[in-house]
Amino acid sequence: MTEPLFDRVALIGIGLIGSSLALNIRANGLARHIAVTTRRRETLEKAEALGLGDSYHLEATEAVADADFVILCVPVGVCGAITSEIAPHLKKGAIVSDVGSVKGAVIDQMRPHLPEGVDFVPAHPLAGTEQSGPESGFLELFRNRWCILTPPEGTDPAAIEKVEAFWRGCGSNVETMTAEHHDLVLAIVSHVPHLIAYNIVGTAADLETVTQSEVVKFSASGFRDFTRIAASDPTMWRDVFLTNRDAVLEMLARFSEDLASLQRAIRWGDGDTLFDLFTRTRAIRRNVIEAGQDTAKPNFGREPGNGEAAPGESTGS
Amino acid sequence: MTEPLFDRVALIGIGLIGSSLALNIRANGLARHIAVTTRRRETLEKAEALGLGDSYHLEATEAVADADFVILCVPVGVCGAITSEIAPHLKKGAIVSDVGSVKGAVIDQMRPHLPEGVDFVPAHPLAGTEQSGPESGFLELFRNRWCILTPPEGTDPAAIEKVEAFWRGCGSNVETMTAEHHDLVLAIVSHVPHLIAYNIVGTAADLETVTQSEVVKFSASGFRDFTRIAASDPTMWRDVFLTNRDAVLEMLARFSEDLASLQRAIRWGDGDTLFDLFTRTRAIRRNVIEAGQDTAKPNFGREPGNGEAAPGESTGS
Ligand SMILES: NC(=O)c1ccc[n+]([C@@H]2O[C@H](COP(=O)([O-])OP(=O)(O)OC[C@H]3O[C@@H](n4cnc5c(N)ncnc54)[C@H](OP(=O)(O)O)[C@@H]3O)[C@@H](O)[C@H]2O)c1
Ligand SMILES: NC(=O)c1ccc[n+]([C@@H]2O[C@H](COP(=O)([O-])OP(=O)(O)OC[C@H]3O[C@@H](n4cnc5c(N)ncnc54)[C@H](OP(=O)(O)O)[C@@H]3O)[C@@H](O)[C@H]2O)c1
Repeated sequence: MTEPLFDRVALIGIGLIGSSLALNIRANGLARHIAVTTRRRETLEKAEALGLGDSYHLEATEAVADADFVILCVPVGVCGAITSEIAPHLKKGAIVSDVGSVKGAVIDQMRPHLPEGVDFVPAHPLAGTEQSGPESGFLELFRNRWCILTPPEGTDPAAIEKVEAFWRGCGSNVETMTAEHHDLVLAIVSHVPHLIAYNIVGTAADLETVTQSEVVKFSASGFRDFTRIAASDPTMWRDVFLTNRDAVLEMLARFSEDLASLQRAIRWGDGDTLFDLFTRTRAIRRNVIEAGQDTAKPNFGREPGNGEAAPGESTGS
Repeated sequence: MTEPLFDRVALIGIGLIGSSLALNIRANGLARHIAVTTRRRETLEKAEALGLGDSYHLEATEAVADADFVILCVPVGVCGAITSEIAPHLKKGAIVSDVGSVKGAVIDQMRPHLPEGVDFVPAHPLAGTEQSGPESGFLELFRNRWCILTPPEGTDPAAIEKVEAFWRGCGSNVETMTAEHHDLVLAIVSHVPHLIAYNIVGTAADLETVTQSEVVKFSASGFRDFTRIAASDPTMWRDVFLTNRDAVLEMLARFSEDLASLQRAIRWGDGDTLFDLFTRTRAIRRNVIEAGQDTAKPNFGREPGNGEAAPGESTGS
């Protein structure tokens, strides 16, 4: 067993990401002590029942005292307020990080509160599911996934290295980029896809010509994939869209422009435009599979036929 | 063993759907003889190597001679031409069907060619994957999935009943509705979802600020789900959009209208509108799972962590 990277890690927020981190810190010996803190007593009790930490606190200020690594695992909209609350209680030399899905706005919110002598290394693990809460975490969540670090210029390289080692210890690959670039990349690979999934599920629910029960019954024809994404946590995603506004609006404008041109091709019977696009996009799927980012199995390897909860196959038409 | 429903079934087209039907007819004893026909010699040879039929024909007219059940399993855009070709060779009393993803236009194309004394029962199995060709078929494809029949008014009830029995014999549930309603339902549960998946994958590929390799690398954050749908067969989907034009344009207009209002909410920081929608859509996912249309497992039950082709988890953020 190698030496733990940290003495005391404070996890602020213990939902999907926080609990998965707790399991990793414990299993991979990344810290001697895990201090867990969260807003609601109910969530804290669940975390305790699951044995996720070594100490449990309703006061974040208590959890961070003496911690040499503090990770905010809360919706991005509250990172600023929590940082201002804990700032006076941070230990000199501590490293502060977060796991927020947006980086520019979170840095703008958190940084002004952080005292001298504390290092700030923002992080974003590109790993998650549509579920939330402390029960939804699992050890393998971060394995073979990317974690993006966006340290502001001038951050102590030793602190960056420690955070990088931490994420590698959770099984992740680590990449560093600017917060601005991160927010653009995530807008297109994650934020806009989530928005349009939420949107089409909403559209389908509001139709008069097709009933909601028909939509549900026949969802296996493609729609059900969107419902999964559109089942993600409302608070988390509201905050993502509000805080990554500019990049999301930029990518959304491109998406709508392209969609308008497809719409036109359909209206005017321009099959070549459709065929060309549909051929190009196929190649990208191949790249995703070759890059090890998804399974090559049809339908993501869902069980075919008569699995209890998973009766089926199909994106079919 | 009960009596087979048919003496000779002719499958015109032996891709994903045709080959899955062949496997079902054989395994479930639905016909005494399976005549396979397809356009290209290469595909026919693959079908023969897989042992999908009892006889193999490059001429559809040959395959349908003496058949009491003929199923077109080809892209919807060619159903009319094929019907006109085979019509003079159809046996009196034969039932003609198809599996096309669009029904109104296919009926308009096929019906005028069909001779007196032949029954026409259009069908659409809501079952498929993103793969195509005779090797991609499998026995369980239709099991517990819906098959929608859209018999034109005045169709002989006995013929409808036989086609219904056939699909039940493949493990499907069967529902009957008008072609017009079918096309509206499918536009929202399948056609528009496919279109927006194709569209966003295209948008992502064309960006200048984010590279294509970044999009692929970080695709597991949500985007990869869309790449799977956008890997579906270009010919089939071009034909779907060209032939279900009106319903697709109608649903697309609703989608775009709703998206514009989300865009506005993001621009003006209206978190409540976002939060309300994201909460409503979550309930629909629950309904989809309760209706047995998808698995409740996170990420569709993709293997977490280190599966060879499936290294991971995450729709995360
Ligand atoms: N895939 C799905 O998810 C799904 C689900 C439900 C319904 N459907 C419907 O099922 C039908 C077939 O789809 P599939 O997925 O089985 O397609 P597929 O795997 O691509 O197979 C298509 C078959 O049609 C033949 N074909 C293609 N173009 C043709 C042409 N111009 N003239 C004559 N034959 C032609 C092909 O013959 P060659 O290989 O010999 O060229 C092949 O045998 C489509 O109407 C589709 O709308 C598909
Ligand atoms: N889920 C993903 O796919 C994913 C992936 C990568 C990154 N992220 C990021 O990770 C962070 C946490 O996401 P998660 O999925 O772990 O969320 P989660 O499962 O919903 O857990 C959220 C945690 O934050 C706490 N919290 C919520 N609102 C709060 C508030 N107003 N004040 C203080 N604490 C609050 C919750 O506390 P109580 O339960 O005590 O109220 C809970 O402990 C977010 O910033 C998200 O952007 C998520």
